[in-house]
Amino acid sequence: MSELHLSRNTIHFAEPLPLQSGAVLAGYNLVIETYGKLNADKSNAVLICHALNASHHVAGPDPENDADIGWWDNMIGPGKPVDTDKFFVIGLNNLGSCFGSTGPMSLNPATGKPYGADFPVVTVEDWVNTQARLADKLGIRRFAAVMGGSLGGMQALAWAIQFPKRLAHCVVIASTPKLSAQNIAFNEVARNAILSDPDFHGGNFYEYGVIPKRGLRLARMIGHITYLSDADMAEKFGRELQRPHGESNDYRFSFDVEFEVESYLRYQGDKFSTYFDANTYLLITRALDYFDPSRRYGGSLNRTLAEVQAKFLVVSFSTDWRFPPNRSREIVESLLSNRSEVSYAEIDAPHGHDAFLLDDPRYHNLIRAYFGQMLEVQT
Amino acid sequence: MSELHLSRNTIHFAEPLPLQSGAVLAGYNLVIETYGKLNADKSNAVLICHALNASHHVAGPDPENDADIGWWDNMIGPGKPVDTDKFFVIGLNNLGSCFGSTGPMSLNPATGKPYGADFPVVTVEDWVNTQARLADKLGIRRFAAVMGGSLGGMQALAWAIQFPKRLAHCVVIASTPKLSAQNIAFNEVARNAILSDPDFHGGNFYEYGVIPKRGLRLARMIGHITYLSDADMAEKFGRELQRPHGESNDYRFSFDVEFEVESYLRYQGDKFSTYFDANTYLLITRALDYFDPSRRYGGSLNRTLAEVQAKFLVVSFSTDWRFPPNRSREIVESLLSNRSEVSYAEIDAPHGHDAFLLDDPRYHNLIRAYFGQMLEVQT
Repeated sequence: MSELHLSRNTIHFAEPLPLQSGAVLAGYNLVIETYGKLNADKSNAVLICHALNASHHVAGPDPENDADIGWWDNMIGPGKPVDTDKFFVIGLNNLGSCFGSTGPMSLNPATGKPYGADFPVVTVEDWVNTQARLADKLGIRRFAAVMGGSLGGMQALAWAIQFPKRLAHCVVIASTPKLSAQNIAFNEVARNAILSDPDFHGGNFYEYGVIPKRGLRLARMIGHITYLSDADMAEKFGRELQRPHGESNDYRFSFDVEFEVESYLRYQGDKFSTYFDANTYLLITRALDYFDPSRRYGGSLNRTLAEVQAKFLVVSFSTDWRFPPNRSREIVESLLSNRSEVSYAEIDAPHGHDAFLLDDPRYHNLIRAYFGQMLEVQT
Repeated sequence: MSELHLSRNTIHFAEPLPLQSGAVLAGYNLVIETYGKLNADKSNAVLICHALNASHHVAGPDPENDADIGWWDNMIGPGKPVDTDKFFVIGLNNLGSCFGSTGPMSLNPATGKPYGADFPVVTVEDWVNTQARLADKLGIRRFAAVMGGSLGGMQALAWAIQFPKRLAHCVVIASTPKLSAQNIAFNEVARNAILSDPDFHGGNFYEYGVIPKRGLRLARMIGHITYLSDADMAEKFGRELQRPHGESNDYRFSFDVEFEVESYLRYQGDKFSTYFDANTYLLITRALDYFDPSRRYGGSLNRTLAEVQAKFLVVSFSTDWRFPPNRSREIVESLLSNRSEVSYAEIDAPHGHDAFLLDDPRYHNLIRAYFGQMLEVQT
């Protein structure tokens, strides 16, 4: 097993980008990381699409900070389910995000100030267009696979629809063909927490030297509840009181932290508010809400997926109540009724939506086998 | 069928009230409404306990505002499932709430200013103690029934434990013997929305002439998501865009209201923030968190319920994911293993937790039959 070969680059795209909203972005940067080596015929490239708060830093220790391990490091690396000794894996930070790619925090060339509220709304389809341009730059005509979980899975799905010839395999994990009303509702509350934070200043808080921390904190707390299952929270926290060792287990009758679960949520919220951009949060949750490729096909997912050519692997998790298995099954059923090739696995795991990031052996063995098979067919 | 006979009173309690927290409240008022007539032997009284945001105003039009109909008017009144031609029904506003009973908005006699943050934390058990004192004042030694939904059901359950001889029937609807970690988590986020609102001023906002509207609004939005089922939201709102008649159904690519469900949540949040007290919100959600009568019995619900004498009716709703049927079944199973008399119904209804307030005929017929039987046994 070789060492992980990680390379990070910022790539500039000078050609203007027309967006789904009608706006046009003059030029932009994308930060990417790559792992492994692109083979001679450029047929072993795998694109990893990220979800809400992740980035290009998918695997291994960060070159600038050893302690910062990539968000999907258990999945991607030498000898791992997506084996970087065999595949050339690309992670990128999406347009509009806040980890180096052009986004609301970037300077708007038209004003010389950060874009802030003026950064255009981007959609999953827009991201896929930028990712296709990235593939062009790298000389990759066709990906071995495009893969993602949650919002990342939506990008993989959109790839199969927008560029049917440019990916051999589409790996859609813990995702959905569109958000439900309840999904949108949770996003809306999180966005309102940010929008109504007095430090948000209509999105132009950078100029005021403040950060809408309260809003970001609440948004993250709400999000976290939806990432875990009820059973998982019961198992992890139950009704345990947060008490230093040896201290009385009586109620304190206050609104400060009493229960472990409260301490956990506050910690997660506080941490998030120190590193994530509030405008990016709005932008990415809106991309989630808007994603509905069947919209232009009168709501028919069968027709939406009629032209896909990729082979699909769809994976869901039994206790994921954010994007439950029946949402994945909608995709699978449409593919099957179109006679597309699809493998589907519903993993019986207790960890809710977060399961897609954890290293359940059944899940990882499945991905390993799927990617292994890919190579056999190629050789 | 006679007319509804409604009477509203504010009752002062001068005797100091020791609370579970150790604090003592010097004196307090409770606002009550009664419907129907107390019979000669005072055996037909029914106590209705309210949930988070409700009040003493249970049935009929408000005497001061015809348009304000009681929150359980479909359940309680002449000829209704709980028939006020036969029962003397009492609604009260709980201590600490904000509809006339003593609470954080009331003047603290010690300072001459509103209690604000100094109002003591109260528990379900404290409420039951105040309700027992109310019964004493009214000369009611034993209720025909104590009844409530959600947090109201917890009060009914606590009655059966604290005053086993003082109620003939205990009606517990859409409730739970204690909150789960997920339940507490949602309360915690809602409370943090209020606590972190700059207009909250540590609970003493009354003095500043402001109201923490942003926090209350977010708290209510979060709450509302948990009151409805995923299916109910899909049915009510789906992904419908909020558009004036005739306007384009294209996305607007903004963070303003796009979807119907967003408009609904914002409306509910705004409305709530105009009439509900922020300190009361903290107080009542904390009472929910703390409720766990099995705590003093080492977590054994069997032992907790060993001494109850009331006959029970327990009702749950299939799509209630706040307090799902399995939480009600915990109560039923403990009662059964103690050989207590209990009827249990799980109503297959699509409306989530809110179902307990709606007039599903199966649900209402069940309550009607149960209360009808009560009278037959008595005569």
